[in-house]
Amino acid sequence: MLRRLSRSAWGALFLVWPDLVQPYELIKAKRDGQKLDPSDIRAFIEAYTAGTVADYQMSAMCMAIFFKGLDARELGAWARAMLESGEVLDLSDTPAVKVDKHSTGGVGDKVSLSLAPLAAACGVPVPMISGRGLGHTGGTLDKLESIPGFRVDLPTSEYRRLVREVGCCLIGQTAQVAPADKKLYALRDVTATVDCIPLIASSIMSKKLAEGIDALVLDVKVGSGAFMKTVDDARTLARTMIGLGAEMNRKVVALLTDMDQPLGRQIGNALEVREAVDMLRGEAPEDYTEITYALTAEMLVLGKKAASVAEAREKLRKSVADGSAVRKLKEIVQSQGGDPRAIDDYSRLPTARSTVDVVAPADGFVTSIHTEGVGLAAVALGAGRQRVDSRIDPAVGFTLLKKVGDAVTRGEPMVRVHYNDAAPVEDVKARLLAAYRVGPDAPAPRPLVLARVE
Amino acid sequence: MLRRLSRSAWGALFLVWPDLVQPYELIKAKRDGQKLDPSDIRAFIEAYTAGTVADYQMSAMCMAIFFKGLDARELGAWARAMLESGEVLDLSDTPAVKVDKHSTGGVGDKVSLSLAPLAAACGVPVPMISGRGLGHTGGTLDKLESIPGFRVDLPTSEYRRLVREVGCCLIGQTAQVAPADKKLYALRDVTATVDCIPLIASSIMSKKLAEGIDALVLDVKVGSGAFMKTVDDARTLARTMIGLGAEMNRKVVALLTDMDQPLGRQIGNALEVREAVDMLRGEAPEDYTEITYALTAEMLVLGKKAASVAEAREKLRKSVADGSAVRKLKEIVQSQGGDPRAIDDYSRLPTARSTVDVVAPADGFVTSIHTEGVGLAAVALGAGRQRVDSRIDPAVGFTLLKKVGDAVTRGEPMVRVHYNDAAPVEDVKARLLAAYRVGPDAPAPRPLVLARVE
Repeated sequence: MLRRLSRSAWGALFLVWPDLVQPYELIKAKRDGQKLDPSDIRAFIEAYTAGTVADYQMSAMCMAIFFKGLDARELGAWARAMLESGEVLDLSDTPAVKVDKHSTGGVGDKVSLSLAPLAAACGVPVPMISGRGLGHTGGTLDKLESIPGFRVDLPTSEYRRLVREVGCCLIGQTAQVAPADKKLYALRDVTATVDCIPLIASSIMSKKLAEGIDALVLDVKVGSGAFMKTVDDARTLARTMIGLGAEMNRKVVALLTDMDQPLGRQIGNALEVREAVDMLRGEAPEDYTEITYALTAEMLVLGKKAASVAEAREKLRKSVADGSAVRKLKEIVQSQGGDPRAIDDYSRLPTARSTVDVVAPADGFVTSIHTEGVGLAAVALGAGRQRVDSRIDPAVGFTLLKKVGDAVTRGEPMVRVHYNDAAPVEDVKARLLAAYRVGPDAPAPRPLVLARVE
Repeated sequence: MLRRLSRSAWGALFLVWPDLVQPYELIKAKRDGQKLDPSDIRAFIEAYTAGTVADYQMSAMCMAIFFKGLDARELGAWARAMLESGEVLDLSDTPAVKVDKHSTGGVGDKVSLSLAPLAAACGVPVPMISGRGLGHTGGTLDKLESIPGFRVDLPTSEYRRLVREVGCCLIGQTAQVAPADKKLYALRDVTATVDCIPLIASSIMSKKLAEGIDALVLDVKVGSGAFMKTVDDARTLARTMIGLGAEMNRKVVALLTDMDQPLGRQIGNALEVREAVDMLRGEAPEDYTEITYALTAEMLVLGKKAASVAEAREKLRKSVADGSAVRKLKEIVQSQGGDPRAIDDYSRLPTARSTVDVVAPADGFVTSIHTEGVGLAAVALGAGRQRVDSRIDPAVGFTLLKKVGDAVTRGEPMVRVHYNDAAPVEDVKARLLAAYRVGPDAPAPRPLVLARVE
């Protein structure tokens, strides 16, 4: 009934039923810089979930929030209403402190694939609800599904059992989890209201808390390939999330990590699974290994399995060295219907039929890699999605033979393209070449972890 | 296709089809304070009219415009695209300068009912497309329809013929006229983006220019019962409209007029028709008469039927004195299917069965009348609409026996309520009593015309 009722008409009705929540009045109040009452925020989001506040009203509200913000009290109410718009999973039958990690997204970011088994191998239960790739960033679910048989659509009863018995379960968001956020995220994505810190923070927290976690490690990517372009913005987001966590009695620790170039060397779903397994064997590139260690160590501390980050890192190194990390991954794969042999034998993973290399245009050093350009090249190749309903090819992707700081000689391969369909390859090669900058001088190395916010 | 395509996906597509208009990019550009290209504005509005830009994208754009504005070039493109989203009526078979009046709306504002026949009687053709009442303001169409048989849904061929032969025709907005505005207005009304001067100005101009007019007199109401609460805001709107008119080669003159209390003494559809006829006979309250004269005089000057406002006012007085104004009204009524005898014999107009008076609570003077409160009381009585699909009763309404500055004695009638259904009467009386302020001192008189902007 709210949908098409006019503002003026609401004015009239308001005098009759003063208790009625009026979407128009709330949008206007926020637009005019007023503070919204938590109960009104809850009613607004409940009505949005139910469909009585229309998409066009919510998009206007989000744009007003973009300009006027939400204070801590408003933000807490907003996030809580989104969380409580759906099912909040009860994992109390797993008594240990349950910890998850959330990344703001990047290219080649396969950290979850190695971090989850690592943390679980060290005794921290990891209940993880992940997303699919869209646009230039990949998604954990797509990567997992490149393992033959792996199922991410388990019922919540099974999810609960696996967290308890295996110590980890990785599934997709169900319709029951934070439906308000699901609806709102799709809306923000097409109305230029994504890059708004209170909306980002409440979206992440409403989804993550619905998983049943006790604590969260946040990986805020910073750089050309990330949502947050500057350390300042990333720090603001981290602080907002931490404050929101405190408001909801959840401990949140954030690392600000570099995303000025893709993480690791493999990009593409099955290729990233390989690199993740390599990492659990201690054989992955240093940047990806280090970021995984840094984030997982925080999880061990939050999960009370280590007294310090140093102690945690030692435990992680041990679980890699003694093979328990890889064994935990296999156990997870098997428990979710996947073929654990693929972890030992990569030929059981989807593999592209052909490869071709992009070569260096000159002698010198790789001075930068335009991360988003590489991500969009992966989309063009079929490794990622242009649209929510796009099909992806799990086998295709890139191996970055050269990364920032590496020396190259003219004609030397920089990127290996793994492909099945030749049609997009020329375009993809051109995009990759355009994404690489080669110059005469090696750039100064950048730190991988830029800051820690608690 | 644009509707649910994600922003990230657009980013990807953009590299493939750089010419594609991306709603997301335009919303973001405006949100970030950039100037939009006129061709992009046109494409955005065309896509909105066609439904490929969704309501939720347009509402986000309107909220961004609320904060960031539109400059003269953007506004011109916006208004022109809205105008050209539909049919622009061609009245070139009426060679004289055709002039209309637009009011930003108030309570008791029956100016169009007397102004149109007055101007036409003085030789200025008046093509007038009007609206219905909604919320606390009434609508010209509803008032006209209280005349038995009067039709406002004439085909455009008939509209064109009557402007040419009778010198005036008053109809409702058809689906063919500025459909983008029709859609957008309904959307703004429920998304708190109505009170935004560039959107108001372009909405009015796109509708009015579609009528086929050459010039426009704008009545910008100022005060507690008006959209524009201050003279400064009203002046800004007037200047924006005049600039937009110049951009589109139409002359616009604006009067800023008082709406701190209802205009005239009658409120309600048939009651306002009576008062309008009274005016054409020279027997109406001074405020309503003066506002009508002032606005119609501007029309005569714009329509080149008078060299000055003074000369125009003399002509208007003459047309009232010699009966030609009333005759023109009867001619208009007859030409649109109405019963012209109702103009001479008010008993042929809908008449309420009962009346009851609201009396003064104390001795003193009426110091203020809360205009919007009176308008909402009229809605509650059934004279106006709470919702677009509400039915109205043409007979019911109020006679304001006392207006601001009038002396009252305790128990003396201040407002006469004309009603058919007794159910809402107590509520209506309470609202009217609450809308009136009675104090010991007479307030200083306010000017009726606050400014003229050209």
